[in-house]
Amino acid sequence: MVTKVVDLRSDTVTKPSEAMRAAMAAAEVDDDVLGADPTAQRLEAEMARVTGKEAALFVPSGTMGNLVSVLTQCDTRGSEVILGDSSHIHMCENGGISTIGGVHPRTVRNNPDGTMDIDMIVAAIRHHVGAGALHYPTTRLICLENTHGRSGGKCLSVEYIDKVGQVAQSHGLKLHIDGARIFNASVALGVPVDKLVRAADSVSVCLSKGLGAPVGSVIVGSKAFIEKARILRKTLGGGMRQVGVLCAAAYVAVRDNIGKLADDHRKAKVLADGLKKIKQFTVDLTSVETNMVFFDIADPRITSDKLCQVLERRNVLAMPGSSKSVRLVIHYQISDSDVQYTLTCIEKAVEEILSGNAKFEHLTNGSTTNSYGH
Amino acid sequence: MVTKVVDLRSDTVTKPSEAMRAAMAAAEVDDDVLGADPTAQRLEAEMARVTGKEAALFVPSGTMGNLVSVLTQCDTRGSEVILGDSSHIHMCENGGISTIGGVHPRTVRNNPDGTMDIDMIVAAIRHHVGAGALHYPTTRLICLENTHGRSGGKCLSVEYIDKVGQVAQSHGLKLHIDGARIFNASVALGVPVDKLVRAADSVSVCLSKGLGAPVGSVIVGSKAFIEKARILRKTLGGGMRQVGVLCAAAYVAVRDNIGKLADDHRKAKVLADGLKKIKQFTVDLTSVETNMVFFDIADPRITSDKLCQVLERRNVLAMPGSSKSVRLVIHYQISDSDVQYTLTCIEKAVEEILSGNAKFEHLTNGSTTNSYGH
Amino acid sequence: MVTKVVDLRSDTVTKPSEAMRAAMAAAEVDDDVLGADPTAQRLEAEMARVTGKEAALFVPSGTMGNLVSVLTQCDTRGSEVILGDSSHIHMCENGGISTIGGVHPRTVRNNPDGTMDIDMIVAAIRHHVGAGALHYPTTRLICLENTHGRSGGKCLSVEYIDKVGQVAQSHGLKLHIDGARIFNASVALGVPVDKLVRAADSVSVCLSKGLGAPVGSVIVGSKAFIEKARILRKTLGGGMRQVGVLCAAAYVAVRDNIGKLADDHRKAKVLADGLKKIKQFTVDLTSVETNMVFFDIADPRITSDKLCQVLERRNVLAMPGSSKSVRLVIHYQISDSDVQYTLTCIEKAVEEILSGNAKFEHLTNGSTTNSYGH
Amino acid sequence: MVTKVVDLRSDTVTKPSEAMRAAMAAAEVDDDVLGADPTAQRLEAEMARVTGKEAALFVPSGTMGNLVSVLTQCDTRGSEVILGDSSHIHMCENGGISTIGGVHPRTVRNNPDGTMDIDMIVAAIRHHVGAGALHYPTTRLICLENTHGRSGGKCLSVEYIDKVGQVAQSHGLKLHIDGARIFNASVALGVPVDKLVRAADSVSVCLSKGLGAPVGSVIVGSKAFIEKARILRKTLGGGMRQVGVLCAAAYVAVRDNIGKLADDHRKAKVLADGLKKIKQFTVDLTSVETNMVFFDIADPRITSDKLCQVLERRNVLAMPGSSKSVRLVIHYQISDSDVQYTLTCIEKAVEEILSGNAKFEHLTNGSTTNSYGH
Repeated sequence: MVTKVVDLRSDTVTKPSEAMRAAMAAAEVDDDVLGADPTAQRLEAEMARVTGKEAALFVPSGTMGNLVSVLTQCDTRGSEVILGDSSHIHMCENGGISTIGGVHPRTVRNNPDGTMDIDMIVAAIRHHVGAGALHYPTTRLICLENTHGRSGGKCLSVEYIDKVGQVAQSHGLKLHIDGARIFNASVALGVPVDKLVRAADSVSVCLSKGLGAPVGSVIVGSKAFIEKARILRKTLGGGMRQVGVLCAAAYVAVRDNIGKLADDHRKAKVLADGLKKIKQFTVDLTSVETNMVFFDIADPRITSDKLCQVLERRNVLAMPGSSKSVRLVIHYQISDSDVQYTLTCIEKAVEEILSGNAKFEHLTNGSTTNSYGH
Repeated sequence: MVTKVVDLRSDTVTKPSEAMRAAMAAAEVDDDVLGADPTAQRLEAEMARVTGKEAALFVPSGTMGNLVSVLTQCDTRGSEVILGDSSHIHMCENGGISTIGGVHPRTVRNNPDGTMDIDMIVAAIRHHVGAGALHYPTTRLICLENTHGRSGGKCLSVEYIDKVGQVAQSHGLKLHIDGARIFNASVALGVPVDKLVRAADSVSVCLSKGLGAPVGSVIVGSKAFIEKARILRKTLGGGMRQVGVLCAAAYVAVRDNIGKLADDHRKAKVLADGLKKIKQFTVDLTSVETNMVFFDIADPRITSDKLCQVLERRNVLAMPGSSKSVRLVIHYQISDSDVQYTLTCIEKAVEEILSGNAKFEHLTNGSTTNSYGH
Repeated sequence: MVTKVVDLRSDTVTKPSEAMRAAMAAAEVDDDVLGADPTAQRLEAEMARVTGKEAALFVPSGTMGNLVSVLTQCDTRGSEVILGDSSHIHMCENGGISTIGGVHPRTVRNNPDGTMDIDMIVAAIRHHVGAGALHYPTTRLICLENTHGRSGGKCLSVEYIDKVGQVAQSHGLKLHIDGARIFNASVALGVPVDKLVRAADSVSVCLSKGLGAPVGSVIVGSKAFIEKARILRKTLGGGMRQVGVLCAAAYVAVRDNIGKLADDHRKAKVLADGLKKIKQFTVDLTSVETNMVFFDIADPRITSDKLCQVLERRNVLAMPGSSKSVRLVIHYQISDSDVQYTLTCIEKAVEEILSGNAKFEHLTNGSTTNSYGH
Repeated sequence: MVTKVVDLRSDTVTKPSEAMRAAMAAAEVDDDVLGADPTAQRLEAEMARVTGKEAALFVPSGTMGNLVSVLTQCDTRGSEVILGDSSHIHMCENGGISTIGGVHPRTVRNNPDGTMDIDMIVAAIRHHVGAGALHYPTTRLICLENTHGRSGGKCLSVEYIDKVGQVAQSHGLKLHIDGARIFNASVALGVPVDKLVRAADSVSVCLSKGLGAPVGSVIVGSKAFIEKARILRKTLGGGMRQVGVLCAAAYVAVRDNIGKLADDHRKAKVLADGLKKIKQFTVDLTSVETNMVFFDIADPRITSDKLCQVLERRNVLAMPGSSKSVRLVIHYQISDSDVQYTLTCIEKAVEEILSGNAKFEHLTNGSTTNSYGH
């Protein structure tokens, strides 16, 4: 008998549904490097349509989606990108835009809601006048992230994004949106995705997070952008052969699971409400806009590491944020009863730790600060 | 009714078998970025075993396999790699080792059999003495390719590879083998793969060429190598989530199709023999060691472009090498009757072109020289 | 008749003294790429001695000094450097560490005194545990800047630097100091340079700023560091032949002009006191620790651009910081009477602008924000 | 008493003349990073005029001249450059165009006269059609070297260069000439430099080789090229302050020493003729077109290393090419009597080695193959 595990570490952990498995088994495929895979083309056409862009490209991961996008927008040596100091691209993608792509990051502070102040973005744009002409890299791109992971999955509004888009356009810059969870934002805001990204020149959309596809992201933009991105995808090794098997599953994910995101968000609120009642924790309920719940541990005797260890023994998986905070992520394979089970386990775990009965292995000293890479 | 197409452009074009499709549908999977996918781990363990190496890593393509390997072996700024001037890494991977990785390629001439002269390899190794101390990059890696694509799929012998391995070792260098078609070499030579790569520090093995997996390659090497490669794979965006769906298919490919390679080679010889009889062509039968057949067009009235256009109308797909040469690649989905059908079509195509009855669109002027990227 | 120009744009603008010119004319030189220039070696030995390091290397500029140092300390792909968000390396060196060197910058906020909070430095260090193992670049270096240009030339204390050095050491990181104006710091603090940089693994020291050499900087560190840096200097094109002609002048600069820095600092205070009395300006006198004076323009009718234009007509050169701030830099070729003349000119310029009599050309709209590159 | 050393290792070893020293001492200078140094501007204007280009830029070395030029011509990620397999850029500049610039080198075999076959250049140009569209980097530049160092300083004719220029132009590529010794070529061919480089989009010209300046090269090209190159020079750290001190010396070098190159070439022929008479050596007199003399050692008892050691004791410095070949370079500070002294010393050295009386230290085993970096 397989024990059910409630895996709340990330929404990347979903298993493919029966429909996805059937789609993979039946997919009509061909060599996509030769431009011949019909299922890849169908998915790409659909994603272009949904996002309101000319073209789309399937890539093996969100990291490659962002890397290909940033490097394509910054294809000239000496480029600088303006992005949030807690953005996933800056913090959790190995610094690849620099270490692989030679793009210089210029960070602007992310507010708690995931925005960067417009005037700080404007101030960060380089002007090649006077001494600047020789001393500055060239600003070519602004990046936003929606929903913004480090802010607990909060949404950027279409008004804000449009304003940033105007800044970009008026300065001759491009705007890229890391839309790993753009459908969560769309559902939470009640704004169609195409409207939400209308100001963007490129968007990466993850299909293997909340949407539940086993593998893959899609980037969207103009035809010219996608044409250049396709070459760079090949350079990086992201060109795959009969990739239609993955795209078939991803197509099902898009078709079946967007409608379930609202329910994920509802469950996240239930979870947050429950956590709020545990007196050793603090939870900012206003931050729970989508499928993520962060809570802080106020009691000095409890660390996130200890808590997660105890939970794991009860088959609830969670990921420490810092030594005193934990992140829980809801996805469509988490049921209402899983949420209740989780709350019960957490309450018992707190009791167990406070009672001194819990045993731990290899406790870290909180060095996992900010360790989410998803 | 779907017309059968005989696709001889590359062995990358195979469609997944029923067994592969069933395996994908049934695969036990988990988040491989979190190190939890059992099917990925099973495939990697199997590939490590077969190649006689400590560890393995699944990557989305052969290009990423080589890129990750070369960059991992050359992780220090100022590295130089010695490789063949007609090698796939040098010619057909977008120059990624330089443009993405900053590794400087030093080419040595490939002989018609795919080898590089040992003494030319030795002469190409840099010595940081005298002026060289300041003027030279540091040689860190030698790359071989087996089978060697541009030589028509000829095999490097274990004796040759071991000699190059000794050169590498005695100079403190690493040896990487681009083993995209290493199983073809193994079968043709009658030498187990582990013996064939015993001198190598890293090997990339393609599963979606002759073996017929829909997507993917594997790199193998020491545990330390794979650990570093895993990070770089993530940086490049090759870390995939429930990748077990691909690995399940690839596992079937390895299990079912290695045994079919000998038959591919036999059919290639049949095809070559048939082409040899067409007086407008020249074929070097001795070069047909594995699953590739190259032939040259001696008649001035026929170009590869014209020939391939006429063939395509008869549902036979082939890829021009240069304006006067064509490459045909056999794989397990090409039957004996496909081979005969191909020969018949080619004969008719020659007649049609010589008769002046054929019509053509967008003829290129031979600028497709050396255009195989597979 | 040549009109005397009072050039306060930077301390890089000094002209070589007669003694420097004589030294250049008489310098014993040889091919330094061949390791044979005795005057270069003498300067390098002296700089190593003064800074208490094993070895030194002459480079054509401070930018190359920092670039070579950071890249040598971060010679492995995937490196990250922690540095101040207003540091010269991050803001004013074209992003070269990324665009040329592929090093990922992680900025920490610079306080008004040029420090970064120690706990923020510690928090910025990456830990390759859990998800971090795959998602993070590797922290390899911390950079400080002393004096810190954007803070108005304020000094980092030896106590602070030593603390940062302890953080670096305890985490296995290197510490680099951009010591473009380290001698100014040394003089202002009354602490010998070798003590001030004892915690650093590498330091770049500019000889063509306050010290007045026509060209050049020196980097210092361990023998092993300098040996690697020498190769990278050659790669970048910084290896020069009979460079002793420059080193001879630089030697004189070090010998003759360190003693004059205290007087520069005194004059800067006089200038700042004078500016303080102009009611349209605000000046933070406490920030004037060395040879730089920043002042803000409180009057809405005056912009830095207008002010600098009017001053230039009176042969006083200054550099706008932002549309409402100006930077003035003292060096040994600015006399006490130059300071008085400058104050007089500024007072008159303010009157002229406020009277509406001044005319301007090509006024920028303040886009020169943060434009100092020196 | 200083013993006269006859230094034939390279023409980079000349000491500045009295006129150069006087010029350095008297040079009118200003901050060239601020675009204000009149002497730098005068030299750049003169070099632009002499080479028939719109603009020029002084750089600290020939390596930087080539690096800045290649990177400026290849400013987009994914660029490939076609260059000779024995060219200085490919062999002796640390692979900087790749390791620093991410440009992929595609080598074509250099003929003994320094040319590359035109048809091989054409064949190396990439065509982004068919599979090539995804698998190839983009050819952007062809590089020539004139005189070509590894061929013994032989000259490329204006006819040949123009042909390569036509190939470049007709394919939308740029042509860069590494003209480290372009004045030697000009003098030997009797063709003005501007005519010799008229087909080139950029040229690097070394002033510190045969022309005898202590430090520096100049790159020339269109105004747009130089404007971009100026930024990249700053990025690399090649922007220098009162650089007029070097430019003043370089100006004298250009003015005084071009006229002496013919005499250098004459002396090289005298030296070659003398070496030809030593029966243990073989010399190809036809290869001695400019100021370089290569000879091979036919006698098995003599190695270049041994020979150079014995010569050094007699104050004649030479550089081994391989274990059996030596390079000697004439410059204007080598007199006719130095040539005779050298021939006498070499004869005696041969005798001494053959007699078995010579003693040696640290003999290398010929690993210095191809070690010239100058």
